[in-house]
Amino acid sequence: MGAKLLDGKKTAEDIREELKDKVRELTLNDCRPHLALINVGDDPASQVYLRAKGAACEKLGIESTLHKFPANVDRARLEDAIIALNEDKKVHGVLLQLPIPSHLPEDQMILAMDAKKDVDGFHPLSAGLLASGTPGFVACTPLGVVTLLHRHGVPINGKHAVIVGRSRIVGRPLANLLSMKRRDLNATVTLCHSGTSNLPGITRQADILVAAIGCAGAITGAMVKPGAAVVDVGMNRVPDPSKKSGYRLTGDVVFDEAAEVASWITPVPGGVGPMTVAMLMSNTVKAAAMQAGLKVEDAYNA
Amino acid sequence: MGAKLLDGKKTAEDIREELKDKVRELTLNDCRPHLALINVGDDPASQVYLRAKGAACEKLGIESTLHKFPANVDRARLEDAIIALNEDKKVHGVLLQLPIPSHLPEDQMILAMDAKKDVDGFHPLSAGLLASGTPGFVACTPLGVVTLLHRHGVPINGKHAVIVGRSRIVGRPLANLLSMKRRDLNATVTLCHSGTSNLPGITRQADILVAAIGCAGAITGAMVKPGAAVVDVGMNRVPDPSKKSGYRLTGDVVFDEAAEVASWITPVPGGVGPMTVAMLMSNTVKAAAMQAGLKVEDAYNA
Repeated sequence: MGAKLLDGKKTAEDIREELKDKVRELTLNDCRPHLALINVGDDPASQVYLRAKGAACEKLGIESTLHKFPANVDRARLEDAIIALNEDKKVHGVLLQLPIPSHLPEDQMILAMDAKKDVDGFHPLSAGLLASGTPGFVACTPLGVVTLLHRHGVPINGKHAVIVGRSRIVGRPLANLLSMKRRDLNATVTLCHSGTSNLPGITRQADILVAAIGCAGAITGAMVKPGAAVVDVGMNRVPDPSKKSGYRLTGDVVFDEAAEVASWITPVPGGVGPMTVAMLMSNTVKAAAMQAGLKVEDAYNA
Repeated sequence: MGAKLLDGKKTAEDIREELKDKVRELTLNDCRPHLALINVGDDPASQVYLRAKGAACEKLGIESTLHKFPANVDRARLEDAIIALNEDKKVHGVLLQLPIPSHLPEDQMILAMDAKKDVDGFHPLSAGLLASGTPGFVACTPLGVVTLLHRHGVPINGKHAVIVGRSRIVGRPLANLLSMKRRDLNATVTLCHSGTSNLPGITRQADILVAAIGCAGAITGAMVKPGAAVVDVGMNRVPDPSKKSGYRLTGDVVFDEAAEVASWITPVPGGVGPMTVAMLMSNTVKAAAMQAGLKVEDAYNA
């Protein structure tokens, strides 16, 4: 293996240590960061994610509250709860854990949130501010990808970044972020997806290749340009009888092949995953500081 | 010249004819479309644009009102005027002619507008809804580019579109629009800009090449892939003593060279320019229909 690891676990730990100091400072200023987590129904994966987010808050001294609603909650009740959290001055960040049951209009529920508390960065206003070059809250996974690249000294300015996958929470905001006119970004960006013809011909041009497809093994070593930085956002369960759980987690990239060709590569797990939670914490601290009227040191804030 | 012309003048005329019927129908339903144009100061170019927009409204039977403010208007007064137009049920579209004097915060003034009346598509919420795959109002120039391609039968799905220029009113929304997951869009999109290395190497891959740079002659014939569709958004004044005005208008593309190589090409003037005004009219009619609670036939509305 020739590639250096883009170690998300270690980087996320560093960021958490830095955030602890900020949380302490805010708490001394009577503005302890507070993240409200909204959970509708009993989706088992959601329970795991929510526990992880709550635990991450606790470790940093961030207050978190869980607002649980039954799967059959009606729209008005959920909307009222979101509005109440918008108005609650003690709450700085509001996160609606997705997916929500299909009788609820997901888009409308997200629109009901105050974009000033949108620490997930999923509100269309957050997406639009990013696309307009004046980001508010950037979605946690794209923010985590860029932070991981920066902290490992991967050059971005003037490079060609190819993103495979156009989801509104990863691929699209990442395309808008990487192409921002800033000295530490400023990449030429190609957004590929299920409709792309000759994908390998495009990925082989990538100085930075980001896979966010959700399909194990979609990116082989032959699709990677020598010397590239490969970021694997995929997190797929592959059956594995040798594991107790019966499966193992794997990304979208064939790691062993890509690691021979690339100069940098993220492991899965331990790459982008931990960064996403760290960025949620970072956005929550930023939200608290902004709402307290404090100056926010934030690289991605215009 | 081998390329077919992407005739924006003719296409815009066709669209205006179609819109006339819709305006008549809305007017009969007691909902005559009404566009409010806001003008701050005396920028001469702005006066020309505003007159053109007012005249376009008049031809279609759309009501337009001009709201003029002196260059030294204070922020609060302008903001109050915007809010009053937001609340005025007789007004369906609100357009703030840019640029505005530098003592006024442009971003904040646009944010003050109700996104439901944002017929220019410049509000960050409009940009974000587009980036999220559920467009509200799409900015007029990108919408005009795509409409021009569609009406000339240029294939987009599965093609590689290269956009040169990342402005928030052209390049960026066009990138988000062309890459939407829809049968008549679904392009792979590369966004290039001033930071791009080896621009010709990328533009020569483009099945659809969009120049939105603002620099005469930036795209030469050698940068165009044979058989491509070339869309020139540029509108540059080049000194020309043979003209009465002392200048002529030219795009970003060296037309004669590119027309030899491409299969389709826009003239300048007469290409994208007329489409932009036609799309403003289309967005205004759509705004009126939506505010009247009528079903809107709009290809770009999710």
